[in-house]
Amino acid sequence: MATQKALKRSQRHFYFADETLDFAAGWLLGYAQQGGMSPGELFYCFNQIKRESPLVWVKTFTEALHYQQAKASELEAQADPAGAAAHHMAAVVAARAILHMLNPTLPEARVVTEAMERAFQAAIGQLGVRLEPWAIPFANGYLPAYVSSDLGSAKTLFVVIGGGDTYREDLWFFGGKAALERGYAVLMPDLPGQGSTPYQGLHFGEATIEALGVALAAVRQRGFAGRVVLCGWSGGGYFTTKFVERSAPAPEIAAWIASTPIHDLQHVFEVAMPGFLRTNPSSWWKQQVLHLAGQMNPVLQAALEKYQWQFGPEGIAGIIEKFADARVNLERLNIPLLALVGESEDAEMIRQAEVVFQTLHARQPASSLVKFSPASGADAHCQINNLPLAQHTIFAWLQGQGL
Amino acid sequence: MATQKALKRSQRHFYFADETLDFAAGWLLGYAQQGGMSPGELFYCFNQIKRESPLVWVKTFTEALHYQQAKASELEAQADPAGAAAHHMAAVVAARAILHMLNPTLPEARVVTEAMERAFQAAIGQLGVRLEPWAIPFANGYLPAYVSSDLGSAKTLFVVIGGGDTYREDLWFFGGKAALERGYAVLMPDLPGQGSTPYQGLHFGEATIEALGVALAAVRQRGFAGRVVLCGWSGGGYFTTKFVERSAPAPEIAAWIASTPIHDLQHVFEVAMPGFLRTNPSSWWKQQVLHLAGQMNPVLQAALEKYQWQFGPEGIAGIIEKFADARVNLERLNIPLLALVGESEDAEMIRQAEVVFQTLHARQPASSLVKFSPASGADAHCQINNLPLAQHTIFAWLQGQGL
Repeated sequence: MATQKALKRSQRHFYFADETLDFAAGWLLGYAQQGGMSPGELFYCFNQIKRESPLVWVKTFTEALHYQQAKASELEAQADPAGAAAHHMAAVVAARAILHMLNPTLPEARVVTEAMERAFQAAIGQLGVRLEPWAIPFANGYLPAYVSSDLGSAKTLFVVIGGGDTYREDLWFFGGKAALERGYAVLMPDLPGQGSTPYQGLHFGEATIEALGVALAAVRQRGFAGRVVLCGWSGGGYFTTKFVERSAPAPEIAAWIASTPIHDLQHVFEVAMPGFLRTNPSSWWKQQVLHLAGQMNPVLQAALEKYQWQFGPEGIAGIIEKFADARVNLERLNIPLLALVGESEDAEMIRQAEVVFQTLHARQPASSLVKFSPASGADAHCQINNLPLAQHTIFAWLQGQGL
Repeated sequence: MATQKALKRSQRHFYFADETLDFAAGWLLGYAQQGGMSPGELFYCFNQIKRESPLVWVKTFTEALHYQQAKASELEAQADPAGAAAHHMAAVVAARAILHMLNPTLPEARVVTEAMERAFQAAIGQLGVRLEPWAIPFANGYLPAYVSSDLGSAKTLFVVIGGGDTYREDLWFFGGKAALERGYAVLMPDLPGQGSTPYQGLHFGEATIEALGVALAAVRQRGFAGRVVLCGWSGGGYFTTKFVERSAPAPEIAAWIASTPIHDLQHVFEVAMPGFLRTNPSSWWKQQVLHLAGQMNPVLQAALEKYQWQFGPEGIAGIIEKFADARVNLERLNIPLLALVGESEDAEMIRQAEVVFQTLHARQPASSLVKFSPASGADAHCQINNLPLAQHTIFAWLQGQGL
């Protein structure tokens, strides 16, 4: 089984024997620190999942979604906006849970994605949060995003960039909410490959990096004239590193946070991905192996199907070819960096975070590297089981920069 | 094993095979919705507890306490009050976890209790919360409490009353924090038998009910001139019911919340407590049975030792004799009541909540009974796995009363 997880992300055991489901369980529990589904609601679902299969998981969280939707409607009818918002936000998390294990090419997946978007937008509406949905024109389509309504008067924009597993609604929990509460303007975009963008034919690759530049330009056109802070999570750690490299010199970017910064994506795949993804250079062969691995474990198959969909026709196996120059020229990085890394992440992620930090610290002494120990609870990939600690670390550092 | 739990409190399984430890695990996880230890920190501890023994539990959470204390000091030295407060509040929860399984008569237990108090007071100090510790004179000793600093100008005082398992610091999570955030003044007292009061020779019984009256009079002497809202949890459901009966007519008490209201404590013990507590009227015999039951399960033994300490020389077995009149005269209750009950609680708790609600609803039509379903996550005893939902329900109801 050790080779059947996609990447070492955590050393914690929560509830399920299957590592993929267990990581998802811990992820959802982590969200409970910021609203979403409570531990009681989550374990009500977990307890119903006796057989660890994607089908049972999807069925269970679908019932939770319907329950939360009904409660939200009920409280809206009672003119109880805060109560309705709490249930809408729990509906977002239930929908998000479903999407962990539902083949995104099925029609049901689009229905769930739209339900998640509606629930999120209803929640922020009921709460009176100054955030609105925004379709940023890109290529022949658009980047689905949320953006602060009061961009024109904002001094600092906190841009949350997710990774291979995020929808724009996730970015609320990855700093969007915390930044708004602290008075920042916020941009939470889905870049190509993320969220629902593969439905538009947008996939991970060069377009992902380009799109970040397009989104920042669009923010300027929308009236924002302040400083930009980039905050990248998971794959977003690579996307932001690459973007900072390409943007140099980039006076408009005042600071950069990455959990974790990645300068050599190819090496991550070679060293940290399991054997069945890297033993043979032939994409065809790799895809066959993926298929076989999936047949052994339906949960892993569900997770891999989603990644395949996000990476486009060549799938995950073609990832390295998708980025014109997957390695980052460290010499071109020149923005103060806060690098966050969990001690329970893969050693290669920790190593690259150290390399990027050392490079930048010499040039930008305000740069900092924070390693989260197991006792901190923030030691997993993206600090997913103690996001408030990561967020406190981020905003304390920004405050130290006068941002 | 079914007879080895003290009372049916939950239908959820979280992590441990032992029901007492598992309920404690779910309790601690529930606190994570309001600060305290994160899911990551809690599961770091849970994962270390391979053998489900009180000793291992205590050792593990003692390490967590020391870790949080060290981090809090570190951040205080860095002039980071919000960061220090978060670690202090996690230290409170770690200490509270220890006290679930540490014999309170051991010297170590007093050290941990004092560490919990210091951490809580440091947290509210660092956060600038307008709450202060208060020793309310009572009998030959005092009731340890926290009270709002600005009582004189407050319109409504929200009084949080815990049960058989609470320390005054727990009351922060049981509505103290939520009430302060909504602009209420707050009183969070330990009544006789609760928290550290047995060290003063104070135990559950008549004194518990009397002390609530003493605390409310003391608040008046301290300058409070507004309306009082009582909110009782667990055993506090009984204490407040009894207090409301005795205070009638009680124009100073504007509203009463109980999760759950209990009018016949004796019947709860007869019907809902396990056989080994009720098969024989002889206290001596019952204590022998308790001793035997404890020998079968060291976790249960640790829990029962704590209860014995709280109930005084006659122990749990003498409980009924401890209250001069354990039954409440329903005819004397006449304050608007919000009764909260979880559908996964013991049937007798649900039944009594219904009886008290029906009685009051006829007299005080603003009264309401809210039953939380398993899907709500608030279906356990005290809504412990979704306290924010219970709190939202409480404050929406109070708002409806113009309070």
